[in-house]
Amino acid sequence: MVLNTSPLVPGTAVRIEGAADGPLRGLDFAAKDLFDVAGYPTGGGNPDWSQPVPTRHAWLVQTLLDAGATLIGKTVTDEVSLGILGENAFYGTPLNPRAPDCVPGGSSSGSASMVASGDAHFAIGTDTGGSVRVPASFCGLYGIRPTHGRLDLSGMMPQAPRSDTAGWFARDARTFSRVSGALLNEPQPPALPHRLVKAVDAFGIADDAVVAALAPAVAALERVLGTAVDVELASGGLSTWARAQRTLQPWEGWLTFKDWLDRDNPRMAYSVARNLALASMIPEAERQWAEMLRLDARARVRHLLEEATVLCMPTTPFPAPSKGLSISAQTPLRNRIACLCSPGGLTGLCQVSLPAGEVDGRPVGLSIVGAPGNDARLVALAAAFEEEFRP
Amino acid sequence: MVLNTSPLVPGTAVRIEGAADGPLRGLDFAAKDLFDVAGYPTGGGNPDWSQPVPTRHAWLVQTLLDAGATLIGKTVTDEVSLGILGENAFYGTPLNPRAPDCVPGGSSSGSASMVASGDAHFAIGTDTGGSVRVPASFCGLYGIRPTHGRLDLSGMMPQAPRSDTAGWFARDARTFSRVSGALLNEPQPPALPHRLVKAVDAFGIADDAVVAALAPAVAALERVLGTAVDVELASGGLSTWARAQRTLQPWEGWLTFKDWLDRDNPRMAYSVARNLALASMIPEAERQWAEMLRLDARARVRHLLEEATVLCMPTTPFPAPSKGLSISAQTPLRNRIACLCSPGGLTGLCQVSLPAGEVDGRPVGLSIVGAPGNDARLVALAAAFEEEFRP
Repeated sequence: MVLNTSPLVPGTAVRIEGAADGPLRGLDFAAKDLFDVAGYPTGGGNPDWSQPVPTRHAWLVQTLLDAGATLIGKTVTDEVSLGILGENAFYGTPLNPRAPDCVPGGSSSGSASMVASGDAHFAIGTDTGGSVRVPASFCGLYGIRPTHGRLDLSGMMPQAPRSDTAGWFARDARTFSRVSGALLNEPQPPALPHRLVKAVDAFGIADDAVVAALAPAVAALERVLGTAVDVELASGGLSTWARAQRTLQPWEGWLTFKDWLDRDNPRMAYSVARNLALASMIPEAERQWAEMLRLDARARVRHLLEEATVLCMPTTPFPAPSKGLSISAQTPLRNRIACLCSPGGLTGLCQVSLPAGEVDGRPVGLSIVGAPGNDARLVALAAAFEEEFRP
Repeated sequence: MVLNTSPLVPGTAVRIEGAADGPLRGLDFAAKDLFDVAGYPTGGGNPDWSQPVPTRHAWLVQTLLDAGATLIGKTVTDEVSLGILGENAFYGTPLNPRAPDCVPGGSSSGSASMVASGDAHFAIGTDTGGSVRVPASFCGLYGIRPTHGRLDLSGMMPQAPRSDTAGWFARDARTFSRVSGALLNEPQPPALPHRLVKAVDAFGIADDAVVAALAPAVAALERVLGTAVDVELASGGLSTWARAQRTLQPWEGWLTFKDWLDRDNPRMAYSVARNLALASMIPEAERQWAEMLRLDARARVRHLLEEATVLCMPTTPFPAPSKGLSISAQTPLRNRIACLCSPGGLTGLCQVSLPAGEVDGRPVGLSIVGAPGNDARLVALAAAFEEEFRP
């Protein structure tokens, strides 16, 4: 095992100045090592992910540079973005500055670590099954999983294209709003959501201590939007949604990586390789069931979140767990995270995790969730939340 | 991928002088990195196989040192001995000096490479499913898989204990006999076998070019023992025996490694991790069938090889294939190797691969096979063969 705790990819010093006059002038950012940066290999978190060195920046990188932000690093990711805790057997586990003995969350682990430590003003990551939301929760950051399909993902290494998104982290709502404005490219200021609902099924999956820790943040949202109405997010059960997402996403990941695996037989952590091998065996009938369940889930989200309704739920069921747990100790934790994170990849909704509380000193996030396309509205609510919650 | 072609484990310079007056005085040997050497970590071919540094030599190492041989190196092995071609994603593929663009065979790859290059007089390896026999064939060496249970395996890293054996390589029959004498500890000279049979099913699985290349060596054996009688080694088919061995051996390997995998989540080549994951799912009913087939196979070998009969067969169905093949290109090759190598692990027989011919300049071995306990008889036949074949 590698004991490195740096959020930066070893041996890759990068600094690219942003445009002189953009709206993000003065902000330094880091990019997960899944985004192409011209002239540097895209490492993908695995020593055998050898691809031609890119000659163009990824769209997000270029857009941020054009907006005046300065790129100061490429950050460690879970191997080929397959991981949710943020431990990489080759490059180490980036420090969680808010809980140093605990994982940072993944797969955008280095990006979250870099922002939480104050070494960057913001950072970009990717979120397929929770890879921005989970590290945002564990490291106490604002983090967004935008509406699926909203942003141009060119130059970003794919995992499961029907669930892949690119998101970003910031420590404060003002920086978060500035970055969101540059990337979402929507008239500002956007309107707030009209109505708040609270996902009782999602709260029920979280630790009691998390529910208690998030209560003041929920109250702050209610002061902004009015009293929340209790709803069930997944009428058929979040476990059913998680099962469907864990059928579709790994299968797509297998399709993405199988030729590479066959040709290069890459070095991987056992659990990553095992999960890919298991994905290759997912039966057609399971996949077809999951496709149908996905229709149900999308219909549910559209119905529940119509007319600019926003839903709140815990981002993760618990704060960051300890580093170095065995695979079997991690399994039930990963299962519970999947229950809360699967709605994102399954339905294409947009979700922002707010830094909202602590359990035993470890951060935990409250998510606000909107129907597809309501990204800017969530960002506006994040700003209003911060003003109300931490005036 | 690692491009190193040295047979020696990187960064582990070892030299331990043998006793001054033993029968192996003057011989240098190397040991596969599965054998404990006091004071040096036993690497097992994987960077995360971290065990306490041994304080005693493995029985084979100690016995050879006591007999006067000098240990000059620890050699590269396929990861935790799981591999048959000799490619290690972490430590590279040891050179096959007889076919430099081809694999050396595994998992005792570095030991075979070191002897074939002339850098050691002999070397020790392990053979569970072919790990001495295959590299002996591919590198043009004498190599033995002794009777299962014959030697003390203490200090040797296990894989599948009911099939694990320790064997050795040499370039010439005289050195091979000297080492065998020291390790088998049997009155010398042993008698030759009484009768020769030829496994037509095994020859039928080999390439035509291999059958042709081995014909002069078979003729030399016939001049020593009389004309060979055609027999079928596996009355139920070598594929059936291979299926049974591929049920029992991976399952035992899974039991050996599962706690390590769970605790340390080690880095591994994808194919190695995948095969362990697949092994974990082998059904109980398959295992029970394989246990019964094993009884059949053992009965067949005892009957066929009674009264000091020796059987000849190709060691491998083809000479060394190219390095760097994809997993899917390797699969049919591994299947054919399994058909010829499975009888060893399944029945406990003893087998010696003789350097016996070439196909397009690449070596290929002819195996002589005896019922359990006939190890010294096979060694004596190897010497008689060499005298007849290369006077």
